[in-house]
Amino acid sequence: MREIVCVLHRELVRNNLVAWTAGNVSGRVPGEELFVIKPSGVSYDDLTPESMVVCDLDGALVEGSLAPSSDTAAHAYIYRHMPEVNGVVHTHSTYASAWAARGEPIPCVLTAMADEFGGEIPVGPFALIGNDDIGQGVVATLRGRRSPAVLMRNHGVFAIGDSPKAAVKAAVMCEDVARTVHVSRQLGEPLPIPQGDVDRLYNRYQNVYGQRSNR
Amino acid sequence: MREIVCVLHRELVRNNLVAWTAGNVSGRVPGEELFVIKPSGVSYDDLTPESMVVCDLDGALVEGSLAPSSDTAAHAYIYRHMPEVNGVVHTHSTYASAWAARGEPIPCVLTAMADEFGGEIPVGPFALIGNDDIGQGVVATLRGRRSPAVLMRNHGVFAIGDSPKAAVKAAVMCEDVARTVHVSRQLGEPLPIPQGDVDRLYNRYQNVYGQRSNR
Amino acid sequence: MREIVCVLHRELVRNNLVAWTAGNVSGRVPGEELFVIKPSGVSYDDLTPESMVVCDLDGALVEGSLAPSSDTAAHAYIYRHMPEVNGVVHTHSTYASAWAARGEPIPCVLTAMADEFGGEIPVGPFALIGNDDIGQGVVATLRGRRSPAVLMRNHGVFAIGDSPKAAVKAAVMCEDVARTVHVSRQLGEPLPIPQGDVDRLYNRYQNVYGQRSNR
Amino acid sequence: MREIVCVLHRELVRNNLVAWTAGNVSGRVPGEELFVIKPSGVSYDDLTPESMVVCDLDGALVEGSLAPSSDTAAHAYIYRHMPEVNGVVHTHSTYASAWAARGEPIPCVLTAMADEFGGEIPVGPFALIGNDDIGQGVVATLRGRRSPAVLMRNHGVFAIGDSPKAAVKAAVMCEDVARTVHVSRQLGEPLPIPQGDVDRLYNRYQNVYGQRSNR
Repeated sequence: MREIVCVLHRELVRNNLVAWTAGNVSGRVPGEELFVIKPSGVSYDDLTPESMVVCDLDGALVEGSLAPSSDTAAHAYIYRHMPEVNGVVHTHSTYASAWAARGEPIPCVLTAMADEFGGEIPVGPFALIGNDDIGQGVVATLRGRRSPAVLMRNHGVFAIGDSPKAAVKAAVMCEDVARTVHVSRQLGEPLPIPQGDVDRLYNRYQNVYGQRSNR
Repeated sequence: MREIVCVLHRELVRNNLVAWTAGNVSGRVPGEELFVIKPSGVSYDDLTPESMVVCDLDGALVEGSLAPSSDTAAHAYIYRHMPEVNGVVHTHSTYASAWAARGEPIPCVLTAMADEFGGEIPVGPFALIGNDDIGQGVVATLRGRRSPAVLMRNHGVFAIGDSPKAAVKAAVMCEDVARTVHVSRQLGEPLPIPQGDVDRLYNRYQNVYGQRSNR
Repeated sequence: MREIVCVLHRELVRNNLVAWTAGNVSGRVPGEELFVIKPSGVSYDDLTPESMVVCDLDGALVEGSLAPSSDTAAHAYIYRHMPEVNGVVHTHSTYASAWAARGEPIPCVLTAMADEFGGEIPVGPFALIGNDDIGQGVVATLRGRRSPAVLMRNHGVFAIGDSPKAAVKAAVMCEDVARTVHVSRQLGEPLPIPQGDVDRLYNRYQNVYGQRSNR
Repeated sequence: MREIVCVLHRELVRNNLVAWTAGNVSGRVPGEELFVIKPSGVSYDDLTPESMVVCDLDGALVEGSLAPSSDTAAHAYIYRHMPEVNGVVHTHSTYASAWAARGEPIPCVLTAMADEFGGEIPVGPFALIGNDDIGQGVVATLRGRRSPAVLMRNHGVFAIGDSPKAAVKAAVMCEDVARTVHVSRQLGEPLPIPQGDVDRLYNRYQNVYGQRSNR
């Protein structure tokens, strides 16, 4: 899991989701009340599987010589309250954060968005770092919804998945559709997709897309 | 052909036309009722000539151990109905998809657009995945037109060519002009190019440009 | 000179000035009525010093097994009529071409623009490829002006320099300021720089900047 | 220090803060009245620790065979008047320079901005190169403020830090938030963050974030 989480941070860089050290990936350790997360303030180039830290579901450091990410409390809260989630990603990716700064959800006007998010990407509350407010905001917004990503107001993106890779995919797709819908709206209003079609696309994608072993 | 199609997927990545696994290239096998296409949901890094799959013109898997791209039916339909087409590319590239989300064709206001597309890049209908609707929409829009690319409404781009490389070139140029015309229109209206000049540019480019062996 | 011109094409790619094969660099052969230019329709990856072609100042092929760039006539015209020019670059770079599509010069609102261009970047006429129209438009616009770059209407950029490297620098800076001024104007009007200050900046930069041997 | 300053220039390139040679990093030599800075007009690829030049706090060349950056006087002025500053970065990064061209400060509407800048990023005066005007404008704007970056009108960014790396981080974050806030404002007004929350975020980030040894 240290290896997996370490390598996935490269996807944040490769997909231009992060500047400097502002983004992190975590993954639940299968069968244990633990998760692996990035150490705080370490540059992506310097990350190694060994430097990743292990925390319990209260966010307390269990293993590792570096301090865990300052977003650890939010990751821990999500793992504690959403047992189906095995991966969490946090970024300040540009276009998604631009929607978040206006507190506006991203409307579902692309088939790729219907596929992955099953509707709009919702906005979560403004919350300060330092206690459980961010985690609570993420869980309250995502629980029971299709979207695996939330735009935290004036802040950035939290994305979840049943694996760390799925959460990274959700973060990548969130920025991709945030950018495309933004660009589209710059010159007029995108055409809506009828809800029935959104539902059909979502159901098909969740059940048919990809190799059987990938789902 | 497996090798050619595999390598061309790198051009999608290099030209920033795709996020995650959302784009694919296919190529008709010369002299046979078959085409080679990307396997579904496999990352571009992991593609090898061996992992590419071969389908017949109904889209049925003929050779390969992985499931074919979920867009296979659309590719198959195009090969079945446009015998002059030997390569097909599908992407959700940002700027082209932004025009597609508004259902707006890209006006021909650049000489490079007149060269490659011979006029505007047209919009095709909204269509759900899962049957022949997308393929029909692509063929109905592109047949008898100069443009080798179509903006499928709320979806993305399909580009065709007399070779897979020509189709990739059309997809790359489509995003390039989609972006430039978008940027231009953000601060005012681009000047039109008279139809006679569009025709002259198109005819010259199709007949004179490049090395003789490239045409 | 083949080596120099070949290597400079990599700068076009690295600075994101070109899509596919749409851009070229040429350099005058010192002391001869010849220049080296890119072959037509060859991808940047495949360029080698040997594949570069040599033309005379009428644009006729003198040396090389490939057809010269389809923009060769324009390069030749510039070398013929501007003896002080030893390098020419042509691109369809996005932001500069967006200004060109509207036929609008880029106003001088950045000190970096005053340094390199000494004022606005001017617009040249609409001209078809195939005869001397493009070359004439470039020369008529740039002769006697400070700016080493011109926005050819509905087309793209021609940049000149006393060396191929200087012309590439002008093309890179042209796109850079085209983008920055575009972005600035999206949210309001940039503040003008008084003409006297533009003059002071230009004169200083042309005479003081860089290492003595670079000027 | 030559090694550190040389390597940090790669971060300017990697983070797309610079075109051609238009940006520079300097670092104060610990315990001496000297700083290391980039030589003028040398491309980032060609920089080596040996080619970096050493200047005294009046900007006079002390060591090195190349002419120092044309921005040396500004760096020297900052070191002379802000003894707590050990690193200075100057760029013309696109989005920050776009705000600078309008003479508009960047409002603090992102938690990441509150963390790093503690409020808006301010605008400094228009100033010509060639004497102490730029340095005076930077110092007059930044002294006594939280923000480690200033948008110099019609020009670009100066960023400072207690180390060259901290100054580079400030320059990277300045462009990142300049872009995100710009994009956000393109489609409406970003929501403000109450001043009390800005203060809480800033104080926490300056005191808690990162590894203890990094602060």
